[in-house]
Amino acid sequence: MTPTHIEHIGIAVKSLDEAIPFYEKVLGLKCYAIEEVKDQKVKTAFFQVGQTKIELLESTDPEGPIGKFVEKNGGGMHHMAFAVEDVAQALNDAAEAGCQLIDKTPRAGAEGLQIGFLHPKSTNRVLTELCGKK
Amino acid sequence: MTPTHIEHIGIAVKSLDEAIPFYEKVLGLKCYAIEEVKDQKVKTAFFQVGQTKIELLESTDPEGPIGKFVEKNGGGMHHMAFAVEDVAQALNDAAEAGCQLIDKTPRAGAEGLQIGFLHPKSTNRVLTELCGKK
Repeated sequence: MTPTHIEHIGIAVKSLDEAIPFYEKVLGLKCYAIEEVKDQKVKTAFFQVGQTKIELLESTDPEGPIGKFVEKNGGGMHHMAFAVEDVAQALNDAAEAGCQLIDKTPRAGAEGLQIGFLHPKSTNRVLTELCGKK
Repeated sequence: MTPTHIEHIGIAVKSLDEAIPFYEKVLGLKCYAIEEVKDQKVKTAFFQVGQTKIELLESTDPEGPIGKFVEKNGGGMHHMAFAVEDVAQALNDAAEAGCQLIDKTPRAGAEGLQIGFLHPKSTNRVLTELCGKK
């Protein structure tokens, strides 16, 4: 596997409306899209900075993964995603290298990308996503 | 303030020796430097992926900031750093926009860079660093 860059950093927040002003007014970034990902029970807000997106995640369901994370931690950095050419191949490579997977095959993520998660047990407790066009 | 990219993502780990193989063998990145930052009571390992560095942080003192974080959380994503042209100016801009600061003026960080931290109270609980050559 050869990741080309950090595709995005996922940050769990209590409220997009409360969180967006920090990124816009303090850091000077621009929120270019807000998208609901029903499968993940989240509403997301995107900011581009260089090659990387900041993806703010507000839960739409207290029982969803982000809802539980915010309940436990109050929010904060939730996961990071590496851009790869071919997510299916990268998941296979990771498994062959002895990494536990959450997703054995790619599934649809935000912005029309294919995604797959590695298991935090194998990643020093960092929820790690692989992300690509195929 | 206009950050150009994510300069690095700081990840607290129990042990560099245990953590480095995930980044090298599973993700295929290369550890290009290991550096001790005595001021921060950490030993760091660096990996480059596109514009961004992954900075693994192992505590050299249980009473240091990373030692306490690992004790509480077992490790994980600790902070993210935005690259800016002029850290002193960016800290002033952040304060003027109403952001609480940890560092009112820049100080020396790893790799010879100037750094300054914003306060998590103002950043939706994400410890946020500004980082640059001056």
